[in-house]
Amino acid sequence: MSLLDADFTNPTTHVMLGVDASRVLPEEERGVLPVRVEPNLEFMSPAFYSKDRPLPLRGRELVDALRELLAVTRWSGRVLVVDTPPGLSDSLLELLRLDRGARVLVVSACDRMSLVSTRRILEFLEQEGVETLGVVANMCSSCSALKESLGIEPLGCLPLIEDLQSLEGEREALARALAPGLSEVLEKILALLQ
Amino acid sequence: MSLLDADFTNPTTHVMLGVDASRVLPEEERGVLPVRVEPNLEFMSPAFYSKDRPLPLRGRELVDALRELLAVTRWSGRVLVVDTPPGLSDSLLELLRLDRGARVLVVSACDRMSLVSTRRILEFLEQEGVETLGVVANMCSSCSALKESLGIEPLGCLPLIEDLQSLEGEREALARALAPGLSEVLEKILALLQ
Repeated sequence: MSLLDADFTNPTTHVMLGVDASRVLPEEERGVLPVRVEPNLEFMSPAFYSKDRPLPLRGRELVDALRELLAVTRWSGRVLVVDTPPGLSDSLLELLRLDRGARVLVVSACDRMSLVSTRRILEFLEQEGVETLGVVANMCSSCSALKESLGIEPLGCLPLIEDLQSLEGEREALARALAPGLSEVLEKILALLQ
Repeated sequence: MSLLDADFTNPTTHVMLGVDASRVLPEEERGVLPVRVEPNLEFMSPAFYSKDRPLPLRGRELVDALRELLAVTRWSGRVLVVDTPPGLSDSLLELLRLDRGARVLVVSACDRMSLVSTRRILEFLEQEGVETLGVVANMCSSCSALKESLGIEPLGCLPLIEDLQSLEGEREALARALAPGLSEVLEKILALLQ
């Protein structure tokens, strides 16, 4: 699988993956090779090029940087997962414009603010005719809040991990903690992508 | 005090304040009057104009909308607090460009991702010569993580509220829950603004 952190305003996926972006530079070879984090996971982030330092991009600059990173990277995964900022970000809007076949997986917490945000995104995707893979409830004490509020059955529920802070960057421990809900969600997503 | 939600990509401050943005429209009278949420709090949000529905803005459009909302609103508070999205957002960058006297209050959680993000923002503000009011540790189980990681004494620490989800939109209960850390932080900020 290939993974791109498309949150140019605040890239932090590398931190969750335990990758020190200030010390890693993707190799160049007729393009740029994403960084192999696990045998089956290659990863790219703007933080590699900013050395995890500030990267203040304005309007059009951000979209140009996203397009360049997408274009120069030699992705080899069968699926490219793009992590976008919360809400209707310029990154998300540009990705949907570039690839009309892209499908969106909406990840939502279950508090009121998250549900308001998720309802807006789902309405937008429906307006635009963008196919969604579904909604994953994340960090919800009860999965039913999402169903009650949004009227849709979530694709799956990831558990609320009390000790999440200490797991950031610890890939194996993180995978173990998420496993109960995550394996079911991943199976469903892979089936939808067949 | 005046408060503006400048997160055009995902406005949710109104939800925390218990304001139904789909039913409230700011009055117009030689400009636009912000909505009075409490006797001493007036509030403005792009969600009032989108009726809390999707508002997909691209690059320059977002900055234009921010400038317009700032300009047409008849602020009466002595202090205007602007809530910006996480990281080095276009909203934050534009606000710093518009008002070289603006001062930044950095709010940070204490997990690794938040600390990486906060370090980048502080480095950027220092490079740009922007004066900060300080850093407030938010939702940290221990305030020391922030000091150890960033090497700065936080202005204050807001408590980790286990039951935050149920307090969203409940202004009085929220104020009570936050009071232990918040009143100290507010006093310090007001002193800095003298």
